[in-house]
Amino acid sequence: MSHTIRNKASLLARVRRIRGQVEALERALEAEKGCAEIMQQIAAFRGAANGLMTEVIEEHLRTHVASPSITSNASRTKGADELVEIVRAYLR
Amino acid sequence: MSHTIRNKASLLARVRRIRGQVEALERALEAEKGCAEIMQQIAAFRGAANGLMTEVIEEHLRTHVASPSITSNASRTKGADELVEIVRAYLR
Amino acid sequence: MSHTIRNKASLLARVRRIRGQVEALERALEAEKGCAEIMQQIAAFRGAANGLMTEVIEEHLRTHVASPSITSNASRTKGADELVEIVRAYLR
Amino acid sequence: MSHTIRNKASLLARVRRIRGQVEALERALEAEKGCAEIMQQIAAFRGAANGLMTEVIEEHLRTHVASPSITSNASRTKGADELVEIVRAYLR
Repeated sequence: MSHTIRNKASLLARVRRIRGQVEALERALEAEKGCAEIMQQIAAFRGAANGLMTEVIEEHLRTHVASPSITSNASRTKGADELVEIVRAYLR
Repeated sequence: MSHTIRNKASLLARVRRIRGQVEALERALEAEKGCAEIMQQIAAFRGAANGLMTEVIEEHLRTHVASPSITSNASRTKGADELVEIVRAYLR
Repeated sequence: MSHTIRNKASLLARVRRIRGQVEALERALEAEKGCAEIMQQIAAFRGAANGLMTEVIEEHLRTHVASPSITSNASRTKGADELVEIVRAYLR
Repeated sequence: MSHTIRNKASLLARVRRIRGQVEALERALEAEKGCAEIMQQIAAFRGAANGLMTEVIEEHLRTHVASPSITSNASRTKGADELVEIVRAYLR
């Protein structure tokens, strides 16, 4: 069972807020708003994406690497490998 | 007239692709997919947000700061001020 | 003449501060400090690098793209091209 | 004992390469090189800082959170807490 379930409600709320931001950006483009406003909207939802990533990384770390309920070393190593891979791609 | 109009179709296509990515992420969370997959999706749409920002910055720069059709120094300065403000917020 | 000259003192002060941060990090590693401290030092100097980049981008924009003293459209376009190239690489 | 010791040689080599990049940047500013070149140098060492951070995060994760040799849950939790704190600050 994946840890994303544990925080499903919180993560879904974040993703829906981001979807709302992207939809607002789409409407702003269609309405031909000024680009200063457009750029601020993009910055806002990029920030929200970073916040979501931070929350998922924390959950993954606590549930798949650090949790006392993990009894197999192989499981911990797998959880760590997955995290390393994503951090490498994200911080390139 | 804002420069966002000139590239409206291209920018809208990008934003709609990002909306599709966010909707796919929402479905993945609802379906309780594994978090490695979730993290890859977040990384992908954060990358797409950076690509969109780069395109808007380029358009703003070319149309509101560098364009030969700008005849007033005050307009150029205003265009540059807006760009500096967003770069400062984005690269904090 | 390049715009980096105009702000040379300010930019050099920033770069020297960053050099000091990197040297402190090197000493911390040699002294085998804890990694929480090491990570905070890396975060601090990455932040300083972003601040330096923001200052150089602003200077480049004001001097090589927006300045009223630029009389040739080709010069403005060249200045804009250089800026676009670096923004693309930086926000990848 | 901190994990930074284990990889001390590799991390020190990275930090010294970054110090070399910062010193080269300082010389380029003093020699009043063009700003396109300056911006490329800043981008290069910011990238190197991200690479260093990724390596330290990986080492911290493997040694202080995932390692089979950690026998206390409190130690694992402390290692995870430190990592979460740095990821939050870094991805803000």
